[in-house]
Amino acid sequence: MSAAPVIATAPSGLAYRVADLALAEAGRHQIRLAEHEMPGLMALRREYAQVQPLAGARIAGSLHMTVQTAVLIETLVALGADVRWASCNIFSTQDEAAAAVVVGRPETGGTPDDPRGTPVFAWKGESLAEYWECTEAILAWPSASDGTGGPTLILDDGGDATMLVHSGVRYEAAGAVPSDPRPGEPGYSEEHLVVLDVLRRSLAADPQRWTRIASAIGGVSEETTTGVHRLYQLAAAKELLFPAINVNDSVTKSKFDNRYGIRHSLPDGLNRATDVLIGGKVAFVAGYGDVGKGAAESLRGQGARVVVAEVDPICALQAAMDGFQVVRLEDVVGEADFFITTTGNFDVIRVEHMAAMKDKAIVGNIGHFDNEIDMAGLAAVPGIVRTEIKPQVHEWTFPAGAPGGEGDDAERGERSIIVLSEGRLLNLGNATGHPSFVMSNSFANQVIAQIELHTSDAYENEVYRLPKILDEKVARLHLDALGVELTELTKEQADYIDVDVAGPYKPDHYRY
Amino acid sequence: MSAAPVIATAPSGLAYRVADLALAEAGRHQIRLAEHEMPGLMALRREYAQVQPLAGARIAGSLHMTVQTAVLIETLVALGADVRWASCNIFSTQDEAAAAVVVGRPETGGTPDDPRGTPVFAWKGESLAEYWECTEAILAWPSASDGTGGPTLILDDGGDATMLVHSGVRYEAAGAVPSDPRPGEPGYSEEHLVVLDVLRRSLAADPQRWTRIASAIGGVSEETTTGVHRLYQLAAAKELLFPAINVNDSVTKSKFDNRYGIRHSLPDGLNRATDVLIGGKVAFVAGYGDVGKGAAESLRGQGARVVVAEVDPICALQAAMDGFQVVRLEDVVGEADFFITTTGNFDVIRVEHMAAMKDKAIVGNIGHFDNEIDMAGLAAVPGIVRTEIKPQVHEWTFPAGAPGGEGDDAERGERSIIVLSEGRLLNLGNATGHPSFVMSNSFANQVIAQIELHTSDAYENEVYRLPKILDEKVARLHLDALGVELTELTKEQADYIDVDVAGPYKPDHYRY
Amino acid sequence: MSAAPVIATAPSGLAYRVADLALAEAGRHQIRLAEHEMPGLMALRREYAQVQPLAGARIAGSLHMTVQTAVLIETLVALGADVRWASCNIFSTQDEAAAAVVVGRPETGGTPDDPRGTPVFAWKGESLAEYWECTEAILAWPSASDGTGGPTLILDDGGDATMLVHSGVRYEAAGAVPSDPRPGEPGYSEEHLVVLDVLRRSLAADPQRWTRIASAIGGVSEETTTGVHRLYQLAAAKELLFPAINVNDSVTKSKFDNRYGIRHSLPDGLNRATDVLIGGKVAFVAGYGDVGKGAAESLRGQGARVVVAEVDPICALQAAMDGFQVVRLEDVVGEADFFITTTGNFDVIRVEHMAAMKDKAIVGNIGHFDNEIDMAGLAAVPGIVRTEIKPQVHEWTFPAGAPGGEGDDAERGERSIIVLSEGRLLNLGNATGHPSFVMSNSFANQVIAQIELHTSDAYENEVYRLPKILDEKVARLHLDALGVELTELTKEQADYIDVDVAGPYKPDHYRY
Amino acid sequence: MSAAPVIATAPSGLAYRVADLALAEAGRHQIRLAEHEMPGLMALRREYAQVQPLAGARIAGSLHMTVQTAVLIETLVALGADVRWASCNIFSTQDEAAAAVVVGRPETGGTPDDPRGTPVFAWKGESLAEYWECTEAILAWPSASDGTGGPTLILDDGGDATMLVHSGVRYEAAGAVPSDPRPGEPGYSEEHLVVLDVLRRSLAADPQRWTRIASAIGGVSEETTTGVHRLYQLAAAKELLFPAINVNDSVTKSKFDNRYGIRHSLPDGLNRATDVLIGGKVAFVAGYGDVGKGAAESLRGQGARVVVAEVDPICALQAAMDGFQVVRLEDVVGEADFFITTTGNFDVIRVEHMAAMKDKAIVGNIGHFDNEIDMAGLAAVPGIVRTEIKPQVHEWTFPAGAPGGEGDDAERGERSIIVLSEGRLLNLGNATGHPSFVMSNSFANQVIAQIELHTSDAYENEVYRLPKILDEKVARLHLDALGVELTELTKEQADYIDVDVAGPYKPDHYRY
Repeated sequence: MSAAPVIATAPSGLAYRVADLALAEAGRHQIRLAEHEMPGLMALRREYAQVQPLAGARIAGSLHMTVQTAVLIETLVALGADVRWASCNIFSTQDEAAAAVVVGRPETGGTPDDPRGTPVFAWKGESLAEYWECTEAILAWPSASDGTGGPTLILDDGGDATMLVHSGVRYEAAGAVPSDPRPGEPGYSEEHLVVLDVLRRSLAADPQRWTRIASAIGGVSEETTTGVHRLYQLAAAKELLFPAINVNDSVTKSKFDNRYGIRHSLPDGLNRATDVLIGGKVAFVAGYGDVGKGAAESLRGQGARVVVAEVDPICALQAAMDGFQVVRLEDVVGEADFFITTTGNFDVIRVEHMAAMKDKAIVGNIGHFDNEIDMAGLAAVPGIVRTEIKPQVHEWTFPAGAPGGEGDDAERGERSIIVLSEGRLLNLGNATGHPSFVMSNSFANQVIAQIELHTSDAYENEVYRLPKILDEKVARLHLDALGVELTELTKEQADYIDVDVAGPYKPDHYRY
Repeated sequence: MSAAPVIATAPSGLAYRVADLALAEAGRHQIRLAEHEMPGLMALRREYAQVQPLAGARIAGSLHMTVQTAVLIETLVALGADVRWASCNIFSTQDEAAAAVVVGRPETGGTPDDPRGTPVFAWKGESLAEYWECTEAILAWPSASDGTGGPTLILDDGGDATMLVHSGVRYEAAGAVPSDPRPGEPGYSEEHLVVLDVLRRSLAADPQRWTRIASAIGGVSEETTTGVHRLYQLAAAKELLFPAINVNDSVTKSKFDNRYGIRHSLPDGLNRATDVLIGGKVAFVAGYGDVGKGAAESLRGQGARVVVAEVDPICALQAAMDGFQVVRLEDVVGEADFFITTTGNFDVIRVEHMAAMKDKAIVGNIGHFDNEIDMAGLAAVPGIVRTEIKPQVHEWTFPAGAPGGEGDDAERGERSIIVLSEGRLLNLGNATGHPSFVMSNSFANQVIAQIELHTSDAYENEVYRLPKILDEKVARLHLDALGVELTELTKEQADYIDVDVAGPYKPDHYRY
Repeated sequence: MSAAPVIATAPSGLAYRVADLALAEAGRHQIRLAEHEMPGLMALRREYAQVQPLAGARIAGSLHMTVQTAVLIETLVALGADVRWASCNIFSTQDEAAAAVVVGRPETGGTPDDPRGTPVFAWKGESLAEYWECTEAILAWPSASDGTGGPTLILDDGGDATMLVHSGVRYEAAGAVPSDPRPGEPGYSEEHLVVLDVLRRSLAADPQRWTRIASAIGGVSEETTTGVHRLYQLAAAKELLFPAINVNDSVTKSKFDNRYGIRHSLPDGLNRATDVLIGGKVAFVAGYGDVGKGAAESLRGQGARVVVAEVDPICALQAAMDGFQVVRLEDVVGEADFFITTTGNFDVIRVEHMAAMKDKAIVGNIGHFDNEIDMAGLAAVPGIVRTEIKPQVHEWTFPAGAPGGEGDDAERGERSIIVLSEGRLLNLGNATGHPSFVMSNSFANQVIAQIELHTSDAYENEVYRLPKILDEKVARLHLDALGVELTELTKEQADYIDVDVAGPYKPDHYRY
Repeated sequence: MSAAPVIATAPSGLAYRVADLALAEAGRHQIRLAEHEMPGLMALRREYAQVQPLAGARIAGSLHMTVQTAVLIETLVALGADVRWASCNIFSTQDEAAAAVVVGRPETGGTPDDPRGTPVFAWKGESLAEYWECTEAILAWPSASDGTGGPTLILDDGGDATMLVHSGVRYEAAGAVPSDPRPGEPGYSEEHLVVLDVLRRSLAADPQRWTRIASAIGGVSEETTTGVHRLYQLAAAKELLFPAINVNDSVTKSKFDNRYGIRHSLPDGLNRATDVLIGGKVAFVAGYGDVGKGAAESLRGQGARVVVAEVDPICALQAAMDGFQVVRLEDVVGEADFFITTTGNFDVIRVEHMAAMKDKAIVGNIGHFDNEIDMAGLAAVPGIVRTEIKPQVHEWTFPAGAPGGEGDDAERGERSIIVLSEGRLLNLGNATGHPSFVMSNSFANQVIAQIELHTSDAYENEVYRLPKILDEKVARLHLDALGVELTELTKEQADYIDVDVAGPYKPDHYRY
């Protein structure tokens, strides 16, 4: 554990402390404003204040420890849960939010020295080793009344907490953690070695710990495409150890977070990073899924000419019908001013593309990991120079003579491109991610999924989506804040289309 | 029935003939231009010219007999099918298209006296009796080599042909057609009596005819929400007699036809009907499904201020996030200039709403049947006067003193509203329906569905949607015409997201 | 000339009569609906009903004789004027509107045999000779109490009536009409010969007729850019015989009629002419003035990808900042699906462009005369075939081998383009022109200009624009109909920005 | 002069110094990136590198000392001018930009101890006394070869430098500076007393100093509406001492800076200040001039529902035709989420409005001075509490019981609103103002105006706008950077519309 100031209550073993009361107070202030923009979560607090549907639940949460997540955590607590939290990304913690959650809501009278909030194991800028220690820490529950020492539920983003449990169980069954792969071998990565090390120490200390923990877990709700993908793979292999709810594919998540969240946060990130005019420029958007649709809409709304690349003919046809030119990157690489990736794939912008761009072209990713843009390839260009303009904004200068573009490439002179957030998600790195209102939709799904998993016995070890009626409920919770006046079906009208007056209103395959 | 079925002009006795070579030539001209706008169908013709995948198929088609449908029919024929056609609406036939299809493609050398095209049983302005005689006629196949006297496939729009077969089989099993319901009894309608009459005569002539016909039918592909709804009901009741493919819910149908088709044809219908400025006006749109989305987008694109009503909280939230005020009809009824229904429900605009509208408000339906607007209630207002401005455009004048609006209603003076297409679909009634390019998507799905049903044994008596790979194929066929340059995944990229390079690219629940 | 001038059906001998009471009644119906959409004119009627500011005025009007113009004419009459009317275009008369105006408003009790309306000399499809006879007829006022035999005011569109008076005066001063130019000589055109002939006959009959008429004319108000251009030339040459008001450059004309009128009527014209999908297509718009702005907005609103050509760098920069690609026609000629001209110049689309277009490209003009597209050049292509698809829609088929496009042109096969309205204004030719609400703005300016000219002595023989306060008044008259709630400045706020509470609110050079 | 670090070379009297080389280097970095986005200025540098049209000019500049202004200053120097610079706002200086300008371009080899750039008298956070000393300093030119001790040109933003010269001359003519007004008297303000003090000291030292300085000034170019307003007042009173060019009303300034600049910087400011979702919310925009148009477009582009207030009926009609509801503030004050002022007037949002807003409503000004929102009234509400969320973002909490809204106001509970930038321009206060590309247009006008004033004798002591051909030139300089391909008129086409092939292309009253 680093000596740097950290934030948390004091669990056994790890000496966490709140660095700073002022930090907690600043966080509390932001949480108060965010609560106003998260009507879904606040409505759930009101609805379930008496019922306490999460009473008895022990929730281990692994999700970016931001101000919005603070509102989520305090909602889970308000519904009766016992909660421990880590971030799912080494950079994404907002320390003031973490501090405020740890100290606790004002009415508890907590202080840094006597925190009365929720244990949080997260700070901005963790090392990989610290990150996995934190993840391990949220899954440890010394006080668990059932003696398992673990949580009853996981709330996951990306699947790291779920993966740690599954790997632990697997290696405990095998009796040993496999030896480290070597560089170049399949599965080798710096992070993987850290995980193996964590588990190796765990097996040494307690060879049934993860098996015991897993036995008490009633389910996981997962936030992201990537995490959901892992879950479907586990389920297909019959290796899923507990039920899973795919929150990612709720309409009120995928069609709101992905689309409207990006519409907000893409130009925000571009502006904070570069202050460069968007209007009148050519913006290339790779991908026209929900994220790409939000990206294209926002850039057009700023007066850019947006061109789109797609591999899926249906999405490509949608882009065309929405008035966007659909191109291959190669065809516009020397013409565009902005290059935005939204695909969730890798190597979408490769180094030969970057070499062929206009001087001062701006390149950013808002889709997925930092391999969507080939940052490694870029760094490996002979003679290239990386200059930090400001944090998360770098100018990469190709030396004169570096090939690129058409014709006799060797003739091309010195030029540079601007890369945002080192290829990681620019809305998080250069701005503040999605706004609270959008997250209120996603997180209301999470809360409802946790209630489902905690209160129902109907779920098998499979991956489920939330029933449509709950998806509709999440939407319903956000209407008042936008002044929406909903029309109500008459009984006759409901009968006419074979639905209940109270919904759900559409077949499952409806696409919105 | 004439030996060489041709288009009817003299319905009595069903003496069909092509009225006019000039009519057929005008239709041929339009078909030639439409072919240029239906690249999906033309690509299927090219792809399957040699294979003849529909060889041996006898297709009974019941779908609006328009120029676009002519291109569909001739595509089916080009793929080897034997075809007979009726319209699915008494008003929607374009006679010149029907005439051209009957005479046949130019290279056949057909003439009105020696038609060499496809039998069409449809003309603009059929009576109900004529309509059902025509429907019966397409299901009769005297020359069928298997001796069943019927088709091997149905291509249906709204489900009338399918319903006739199912009812025929049911009554044949029962040994009798039920007696006519009386006015006020369940199931009573003028049209129902006609159907019963048709079947009563059929049973009298041949008590196993429909059972024999049904036995030869390998499946039906259905175009619409309403028809699909009937099919799911039959399947749920285990009464479906052959496999069904739900074409309506292909992405390239529902998200294109419903949305982009309406975007085109709604303002077109309003303009042709009224010539009234849309810009600057307030337009009320009931429903924010795919049709409502297209409607709202098109009206905004003309500068109207669009307000939306919804019952589904998810769609309502989408409307709000797209920048539309979401209201109840009651709240804006005295303020809007246009009222457009897109819901697929009934009694959406009721007579008390119409009484409260501004003088000269324009009311039209683009969603469903003519009961979406309460036309019967309107006609029953004491003292109301209906004036035809031009065909399909009527001014309904409320007498002075008729209640309506707020306050002392009795004070309200004479005023009128304009109702389009008598409450029926205004894009068909006041304009020419969806443009060819959009229909090329829908109809390419139909052709592919027919090929599937004809060539595969894998289908049970259930309702299927087309596999995603075929949906993607339909999209792919339309890209060149729009100048779309599709990007191709590398093998590594495809592996990374667990798909095949050639698709399909998305999970089934993906919403686009 | 008949004693009671009525609408002509039999042009030989100018024996005018109302053809048909049913025609007049149909026109009256449309006029009644149009009145509802022309709140500016109706407000002027109410405001000036008592004052009768045009009492004593004799107004000769030369402007498209449409339903909207009928409302204009009856407004002028309601304000006290004596009026005679011709159309300014041989094709643009709506005969039913003309008939209704001639018969007169219902309260007058006029009939076709005893018309009590306003003399109209116009019908759809005049010959050039007839056209100029009609123009001559509105300038003849046998009953004029001042003995001049002419009008006191001209209301002009394009300047033909004004030109006829000026030419007549010039030739009377010279004592003779010049001899006809010969083909190839400057000034030669078929139409010019007709004008010379009219004047030659006039001088023979009365060598001071035009001089006497001109002496009584108190001014002209002009509707169009083209007509205004002529007036500025006359004024610059000190040859203007009476004051002129440039209505064209009122904000409420140029920024509304040109922009919002086109936004409405361009897609309307395209749809009625071709029924071809606009969404997803590439639309080329030549010119980004007010007309071009409206055109581009409307096509984008339908989902097209719009590319713009401009010669003016300021307008080009605006187009780019509005998100449109700015190209030269040459660069996209083989790629666009629609080609729309809005420039007011000539030879904008030339025959070599049309030869290089895609098969079935659609070409239309919404800017100016039919020379904006080189129709003459098109007709002169060897082997080209013109086919009428329907009135005002023609397919021009280039023979195989006709050069066009890139590479070895001679290889290019047979292909065709669709030309709308034979190159004339497609919104008038293929649809019904601008909607009434837009024309209400333009025509309210006309009425106010006529009042100014009739009641003020302050105008010299120069070209004036209406004062801003009147422009604001015209806008004000249209706000209620759109539900606009105007904010009122406090006295202190008005003082703060040096304006009057009642306006005008902006300096003259303000651009809106 | 404060002891705080300041920036400048060392003019006599004021001891300026560059605080920090690192600051200058950071500034140089930003200047280099800004040059890439200011193609107009860079093109002027290239065009005039040899000609040196500003050789001999001594330019005193008073305009926000930002990175963009640095590019302007260095352009003036590159064209031969001797320059001195101050900011026109006590807060707007970017210290790093000032430092870099002072040190000088890299090729000069300047250092903080041996600066070789341009004297800059500006830093972020000046006192009023310091501000006016700086303004005085740019007008002092000890080295002037003509012995006048002053500049030959002024480049002004808001008119402070011009006002100082005019007041100095007036008081020198009168022989004395008037005595200070007292609080409550006309003209009293803290700032006015500072100005009088500066001039009083000047007259004491040299009673003809300003008269002498004015005699050498060949003109001023003015950037803003407010400054231009002052100039027109001076000209009308025949008191203008030298020619003035109104840069503000160049099309490429007012229609680009005001509209497209705001479109970019309004959402940017809102996002950086609040991180609150814009989509789906109701945004009230006061004013629909160029700034309001840009504001409304940008908020709609983010998915907000925008409602507009206007006093000018023409602009109100435009807003309606563009699809915006036009309301009075009173009508939506309890409903909107964002309130944005763009009017250039005062008291547009008053304290009673703010008291009636929803809890957490966001209020910002992007139009004019901080009196557009009644900040003084807000601060005077009894019991109100102001909390700083972060710099330039304040929450103002109304105590429970403070009146507001409809009904029994006293019942209204505690609630708060968020006010941005203390009512000053939020795009400057909460973001970084307009982007460089937009300012390149405005500043290219400034450079061209300075060249005009320096090289032409044709200007009288009046206020001029730049000739249209120069406005077009500014636009032309920005086309390449946006990939615009301009079309060129043929000679015949130019003749046809009576313009030169090279422009100008429009009459002066054209509105774009």
